[in-house]
Amino acid sequence: MLKRRTIAILTDYGVSDNYNGTLEGVIRKINPDIDITYITPNAKNFNIFTGAYLLNTSYRYFKKNTIFLVIVDPGVGTQRNAILVKTNNYYFVAPDNGVLYPTIVEDNIDKIIRISNKKFYLSESISNTFHGRDIFAPVASYISVGVDLNVFGEEISKSEIVKLDFSYTLERINENKVKACGKIVYIDHFGNIATTIRNVKLRTGEKALVSLRDKQLELRVVRTFAEGKENELVLYSNGYGFIEIGINMSSASNILGVKEGEDVCIEAYIQEDSNHST
Amino acid sequence: MLKRRTIAILTDYGVSDNYNGTLEGVIRKINPDIDITYITPNAKNFNIFTGAYLLNTSYRYFKKNTIFLVIVDPGVGTQRNAILVKTNNYYFVAPDNGVLYPTIVEDNIDKIIRISNKKFYLSESISNTFHGRDIFAPVASYISVGVDLNVFGEEISKSEIVKLDFSYTLERINENKVKACGKIVYIDHFGNIATTIRNVKLRTGEKALVSLRDKQLELRVVRTFAEGKENELVLYSNGYGFIEIGINMSSASNILGVKEGEDVCIEAYIQEDSNHST
Amino acid sequence: MLKRRTIAILTDYGVSDNYNGTLEGVIRKINPDIDITYITPNAKNFNIFTGAYLLNTSYRYFKKNTIFLVIVDPGVGTQRNAILVKTNNYYFVAPDNGVLYPTIVEDNIDKIIRISNKKFYLSESISNTFHGRDIFAPVASYISVGVDLNVFGEEISKSEIVKLDFSYTLERINENKVKACGKIVYIDHFGNIATTIRNVKLRTGEKALVSLRDKQLELRVVRTFAEGKENELVLYSNGYGFIEIGINMSSASNILGVKEGEDVCIEAYIQEDSNHST
Repeated sequence: MLKRRTIAILTDYGVSDNYNGTLEGVIRKINPDIDITYITPNAKNFNIFTGAYLLNTSYRYFKKNTIFLVIVDPGVGTQRNAILVKTNNYYFVAPDNGVLYPTIVEDNIDKIIRISNKKFYLSESISNTFHGRDIFAPVASYISVGVDLNVFGEEISKSEIVKLDFSYTLERINENKVKACGKIVYIDHFGNIATTIRNVKLRTGEKALVSLRDKQLELRVVRTFAEGKENELVLYSNGYGFIEIGINMSSASNILGVKEGEDVCIEAYIQEDSNHST
Repeated sequence: MLKRRTIAILTDYGVSDNYNGTLEGVIRKINPDIDITYITPNAKNFNIFTGAYLLNTSYRYFKKNTIFLVIVDPGVGTQRNAILVKTNNYYFVAPDNGVLYPTIVEDNIDKIIRISNKKFYLSESISNTFHGRDIFAPVASYISVGVDLNVFGEEISKSEIVKLDFSYTLERINENKVKACGKIVYIDHFGNIATTIRNVKLRTGEKALVSLRDKQLELRVVRTFAEGKENELVLYSNGYGFIEIGINMSSASNILGVKEGEDVCIEAYIQEDSNHST
Repeated sequence: MLKRRTIAILTDYGVSDNYNGTLEGVIRKINPDIDITYITPNAKNFNIFTGAYLLNTSYRYFKKNTIFLVIVDPGVGTQRNAILVKTNNYYFVAPDNGVLYPTIVEDNIDKIIRISNKKFYLSESISNTFHGRDIFAPVASYISVGVDLNVFGEEISKSEIVKLDFSYTLERINENKVKACGKIVYIDHFGNIATTIRNVKLRTGEKALVSLRDKQLELRVVRTFAEGKENELVLYSNGYGFIEIGINMSSASNILGVKEGEDVCIEAYIQEDSNHST
C-alpha cells in the first residue's frame, strides 16, 4: 500500500462559502485516498503579501513531499500564469503572483512548470473566476497520484516568475544596539503585529524604541507576550522567529490601529552572545 | 479493503462552537474509517435558501456515493420531518425543509425515506435542540457502513416533501437583448452578490441595466471581477454559472447594502451564438 | 493493520492564521496515518472557562482512546506546567490551567504526567510563545504511535493540578419550585446563552424568573428554542443538558448584552416526576 499523500491548502476562500468544499470534492474525485489539510482556509482576501507569510512560516513543519495548494488569486481570469514548483522537499501549486516566492527560494527550487496542459484541468472549458476548482485543485491532485511534472506544461526559469520578499535592513548603532527597519507583515487574530524583522536576538528586559506611523513607542523586550503587564505593549520574537508587538490577554492591533504593509523601525539592545559572534 | 466513504457536511453550526466537532465524534464512533469533509461548517444561521444554494452549486464536484449531511434546521424539535434521499449519484440526510430540494431534483430522486427508526438514533431518548448529533449524524454514518436504506423509515414520495427553488424569468426584449428577473440568492464572504439568474450568456464589454431595491445601475459585463477597474461594480457569470455582481479587490455587498432574498432584474445583451441557437 | 488513531483538537488559534495548520503539520510528520479532527479551531481567545465547557460537553461523543489536544494557553512561556492525562476512556494533552479539569474528573483520572522529557519536544530549543507546536502537538502525536506515557515525564497527583468547575447551587423553594444559581458558561455563535445550571428538569409551559445583571426576566420554559414566538426569549435545556436562554431565529446574546462568567439565577417549576423522585 502506498503511503497516503497530503495536500495542504492555503486559500482566502473563507469558512462560510462552499469554495473550499468544492476544492476538496474535486481533489477527492481524482484521488480518493488523499489526506487534505489546511494551512488556513481563510487567509486575508486578495492579500498576496500576508498569504506569502502564512505559507513561509508554516510549510517547513509539514512532512516531506506534502503538496501545497495556495490560492490567493486577485488576478484570476486575467493573464497571470498558473505555476507548479518542485523544491527540495515539497511541491507547490499556485497562481504566479509572488505568493510562493520566499518559500520556494528558501527550500531551493528544483523545477518550475508553467501549467498549460488542459488535459489536467477540470474540463476543457473552464470558468474565468474559479481557477482553484478548475486548474489548481485538479493539478495538485494529479501530482498526488504520481503524474510526471513535465506533462503539466513547459518548464520555466526562476527569472520568469513574480518576486516577493520580506526584506528589512539591519544596522549596528553601537556595540550593544541595532536599528532594524522593515514592514508589518502580518496581524494575527489575537491582534499580534508581526514585522519582517527577524534573525536578530534582542536582549530581554531592556526597552526598545519602536517607530510606526507617526508614533514612537518605548516597549519592553520580553520572552513571551504572557510576561507583559496589563495594558503593556511588549516586543518579542514570535513563534516563527519574526519580531512582533503584542499585549497580554488583549489586542495590540486594536490599540495601535496599524495595517500590514506599513513601515516599522526598531532600535534595541542585542543579546551579548549575538554581539560576540559578529 | 473497502474504499473509504466520504461524508460531506454542510451546517450553520459555525467554527467557534463544538457542534460540528460533536457531529464528527458521533460519526467516527460508528465508522472509524470514514473520511469527513465540509461543504461549509458555517452556512448562514437558520437560512434554508442560502444553504440550498451552497449545496446545489457544490455537490456535483464530489465523488460518486458521497453522503451529504446537511443541517440548516430552524425547525429543530418541532414537527418537521427528517429525511434521507438517494439520488442518481449521491446520498443526502437533512431536515425536510427544502434545503435539499433543488439538488435532489437535479440529480434525480431514486428514493426518499422519512427517518423514524430510533434504533439508528444516538439513543432512544434524544434532545429537542440537537438533532444533528442525535439523528442526522448517526444516520449518515450508518449509511456509510452499508445499512440498507429501507430500515431507516418509511418511503415517501416527492410530492410529500417541502419544495424550494431558485426561479427566475427570462424574457427576450429584442434580437440582441434579454430581460431576466430573479432574486439575490447568495452573498459570499468577498461581498460578491449572486442572483438566481443563470443559463444565459451575456455579451461581455456591453453595459447591462441592473435593478435592485430602488436602485438602477448600469454595469459593465465582464468575464471576471478581476477585469473591473477600481471601484467599478461589474456583472459576470460566477464560477457556478449564476449571474453575479462583484467588484475588483473590494466588496459589492458593502457598497450596495442588499440582502439575500431580494428581487433583482437585469437587462443585457446576449452573446451572438446564444442568439443564433434560439 | 492498526486502526487509525484520532487526535481531536481544541484551540483558540482561529481559522485565519496558520497556527492550527502548523500543529497538523507537526502531528502528521510524526504519525502520517493519524486522523485529525477539531472540537473547535476557534475557541474564545485566552478563555479557559469557555474552553473547558466546549471540551466537557463534547468529549464523550468521541470514540474510545481519542487523544484530545487542548490549547487555550494564556500563560504560554511562563511557569505553568504542561500535562498529559489518561482517563478511563481517553487521553488529554494540555497546559495545566484547569481547562481539562471538569472533564478528566468526570471520566475518572487514571494517570497524570507532568510533561518534561525534551526528547519528545519538536526540538531541544523551543519557542516561548508557541508551545502548541513545540510541546503539545508532538506529545499528542507520539502518544498516537504508542509511546509509553511514563516516558513523557513524572507522574503527579490530582491534588497538584489546577482546578476549575462549573458549579451552581440548587435550592428547593417548595414542592413544585426550585431556585438555582450559577454562572453564564458559554454564549454560542447563534447567541444562545448557556448557564452552569444543569441536572434539573424544568416544567415546560410554565414561566420562570431569570435574574441576570440588574435584570429580572419572566421567560417561558420550552422544549426547544424553535417553539419560541418572534422576539420571545425562552428557557430550555440545551443539547448538552445545560439550562440555556435562547430566542427563535435571533440572538439572545445581542438582546441581553451579557458575558460569560456573569452570575445568573433561575426560579422555576420542576417536572412532576423529578419532584416525586426526591
